[in-house]
Amino acid sequence: MPKKLIAEALGTAILVLFGCGSAVLAGADIGLTGISLAFGLAIVAAAYGLGAISGAHLNPAVSLGMVTAGRMTVGEFVSYAVAQVIGAILGAGILYLIASGKPGFTMGAWALGSNGFGPGYLGEYALGAALVFEFVATFLFVTVILGATGPKAAAGFAGLAIGLTLAAIHLVGINVTGVSVNPARSIGPALFAGGEALSQLWVFIVAPLAGGALAGMIYGMGLTRADA
Amino acid sequence: MPKKLIAEALGTAILVLFGCGSAVLAGADIGLTGISLAFGLAIVAAAYGLGAISGAHLNPAVSLGMVTAGRMTVGEFVSYAVAQVIGAILGAGILYLIASGKPGFTMGAWALGSNGFGPGYLGEYALGAALVFEFVATFLFVTVILGATGPKAAAGFAGLAIGLTLAAIHLVGINVTGVSVNPARSIGPALFAGGEALSQLWVFIVAPLAGGALAGMIYGMGLTRADA
Amino acid sequence: MPKKLIAEALGTAILVLFGCGSAVLAGADIGLTGISLAFGLAIVAAAYGLGAISGAHLNPAVSLGMVTAGRMTVGEFVSYAVAQVIGAILGAGILYLIASGKPGFTMGAWALGSNGFGPGYLGEYALGAALVFEFVATFLFVTVILGATGPKAAAGFAGLAIGLTLAAIHLVGINVTGVSVNPARSIGPALFAGGEALSQLWVFIVAPLAGGALAGMIYGMGLTRADA
Amino acid sequence: MPKKLIAEALGTAILVLFGCGSAVLAGADIGLTGISLAFGLAIVAAAYGLGAISGAHLNPAVSLGMVTAGRMTVGEFVSYAVAQVIGAILGAGILYLIASGKPGFTMGAWALGSNGFGPGYLGEYALGAALVFEFVATFLFVTVILGATGPKAAAGFAGLAIGLTLAAIHLVGINVTGVSVNPARSIGPALFAGGEALSQLWVFIVAPLAGGALAGMIYGMGLTRADA
Repeated sequence: MPKKLIAEALGTAILVLFGCGSAVLAGADIGLTGISLAFGLAIVAAAYGLGAISGAHLNPAVSLGMVTAGRMTVGEFVSYAVAQVIGAILGAGILYLIASGKPGFTMGAWALGSNGFGPGYLGEYALGAALVFEFVATFLFVTVILGATGPKAAAGFAGLAIGLTLAAIHLVGINVTGVSVNPARSIGPALFAGGEALSQLWVFIVAPLAGGALAGMIYGMGLTRADA
Repeated sequence: MPKKLIAEALGTAILVLFGCGSAVLAGADIGLTGISLAFGLAIVAAAYGLGAISGAHLNPAVSLGMVTAGRMTVGEFVSYAVAQVIGAILGAGILYLIASGKPGFTMGAWALGSNGFGPGYLGEYALGAALVFEFVATFLFVTVILGATGPKAAAGFAGLAIGLTLAAIHLVGINVTGVSVNPARSIGPALFAGGEALSQLWVFIVAPLAGGALAGMIYGMGLTRADA
Repeated sequence: MPKKLIAEALGTAILVLFGCGSAVLAGADIGLTGISLAFGLAIVAAAYGLGAISGAHLNPAVSLGMVTAGRMTVGEFVSYAVAQVIGAILGAGILYLIASGKPGFTMGAWALGSNGFGPGYLGEYALGAALVFEFVATFLFVTVILGATGPKAAAGFAGLAIGLTLAAIHLVGINVTGVSVNPARSIGPALFAGGEALSQLWVFIVAPLAGGALAGMIYGMGLTRADA
Repeated sequence: MPKKLIAEALGTAILVLFGCGSAVLAGADIGLTGISLAFGLAIVAAAYGLGAISGAHLNPAVSLGMVTAGRMTVGEFVSYAVAQVIGAILGAGILYLIASGKPGFTMGAWALGSNGFGPGYLGEYALGAALVFEFVATFLFVTVILGATGPKAAAGFAGLAIGLTLAAIHLVGINVTGVSVNPARSIGPALFAGGEALSQLWVFIVAPLAGGALAGMIYGMGLTRADA
């Protein structure tokens, strides 16, 4: 396995273990603010620790945006996405191992920090709201990423900027969908949780990929690109 | 529409969607600390994602301060301000779309994160306190922005410094006015909320513009400018 | 008034208005974590907005440490300290103006974010604990500041590092003394509050100045200086 | 004592005094989110204040990872580790001095922020979960540190990235073990607390050292190293 894919897998494992882990192991104590920070700071960790190897996409929607922006090939996208999903499953597995060490642990309906919507899931938002939120949030997230890593970006700041942007997105949307904006992050926990986490999973694959692809297209057209 | 204005509109939409969105969709869970961070980190997102295009003012009071500081023309100010207001309305519209997907949603008196003061609004502060807070806070905010983006400023740090400053201002003043310091951010939600949010809107146009203009004048005189 | 002193006064006003202001206007909502962030981010604001003019000491204990470290003259210290105290009084005055706009406002025993200790003040810690905390915390704070602004320091990061250090110190010590580590920050509110805030004020002048002076001496001896 | 060891001792004292101190003196008020931030920001303080002298490892598991990565000798590791443990004891001692100034203070079973697991400790996680968490978290932490301080890393950002990573790890794992990932940080409080904090201490020496050593080995093999 090439080093870039090791970095993507390891980084996505960090994202799931720290982000979803904070919700599962400490959510009742740290609240949505703490969970939002954990997701954001996980990106900071992976970006500065592994970003020099692979760019630290950690997210198929980001990699797809890189393709539609003309900064990555489809072949690279496929290998990145596979590595990201493997990493997310690894992160969810380690999280399951730790979480099950608590007396009385049981796998709930949306276990291990799964995303969801509708009756029984956090704010019980409708499917439409979930789709709009995931699409718009991923579009904005990937637009920020493309700009922050573009040719005119301030060197070194991308990891902080992108991580803090993800924290902000979580502060807005955890009640709506738990916030995916990342198919890999959703797939990992859903495979363990099964049930509704799995049957609703398509939303967290389709909407983020669509949002990321659009962001890349608009960037590729030069509309949100600083150098054009 | 020139690319600079697209960036201002998109960035201000991010500010309203992330900032006001966190209050509307998650405020009861994340509290004033979480809301403050969301506003601040929205600036970080827009600054590093779009700032290389337009400077990421996202705020007519900031753009006016740039005019009185001698760093922008009146014509540019007008086009920036229009783009910022359009972006704020767009952000508030998307927020309305998502928020209305929650069962039992109703538009309250100060809906979508509208600013306000007096009986029924958060700390119920008097008009005078609201005016003083918005004027002083915007004066200090724009003074910081002018310094952090000036010729002797540390390269690359402006986005972080400005976003974290806005977070601090929110930690201080949410109970007083909900914190505007930005006419565009106030106009967006108020147009949807109507009622008192609209009748009190002048406060959040006049006080921030006055504070921003004064900050630019004092900077232009060299009193707060590092290079003079 | 020379521009450096304007910057010190304005920056210290920001520190008191944002830091103490968050405690007074929002403390019951944002808790000690929110207050700690507000103090830290106020430093970030002043450092990036005004630091290029005066260095943004904002604190007589910091300026004294610069003297004992051999990086500032006694004459400069005196003028900086006077400007800092003037700024702190200004910040406390504006805060009083805003706070009194809330229906039912009254000046309590330790009003406007005054520091204190003993019966009736937060954790009711003894005088000895207050002295030890203020001395040690200021010693460490000024040691960090001297290092972060020294010749081998990473350019541009000092403002963030120092602000976040002050936030950490507040997370530790608010229950002990409310956290001063800064005579100016204590004098401003105490002049308005009177009573015990004023009679205990000597602690928040003596202990921080002693801690800052010692940090500068040890740095001046080269023990904590990277370049020696 | 060479200057590098003074910096390691002083920096580790900061970590224990700020991190454990926030839990002991303010934990009931700032919650796990505030404690997590205090630990992370303590690293930021020490890294920018003292890192130019010694690298600011502050942690035997980090120094051991530097050895297995081929970036430090065993002799240096031993002297660093001794200094770190001395600093941690110093920090815990000062914390004890301050904490005992509160009326009614008593030393509990896991006093001064000691790490632990099992019946009576926070989430009451089993030994296996504690071992897995400490091993995996330290492995990831040291992997991030090695990358963020490696030859291709963005200059100046390491202190922020590493501190924020530690904050994220605390947001995930405080309920599991209180989060050590650092033998020195565990030894300091345990020596004062005695009892179970001391009898369980081996976990917080063995698991972090194993995780750090593995991270260094994998980095040394080039698998997580950007320049290979």
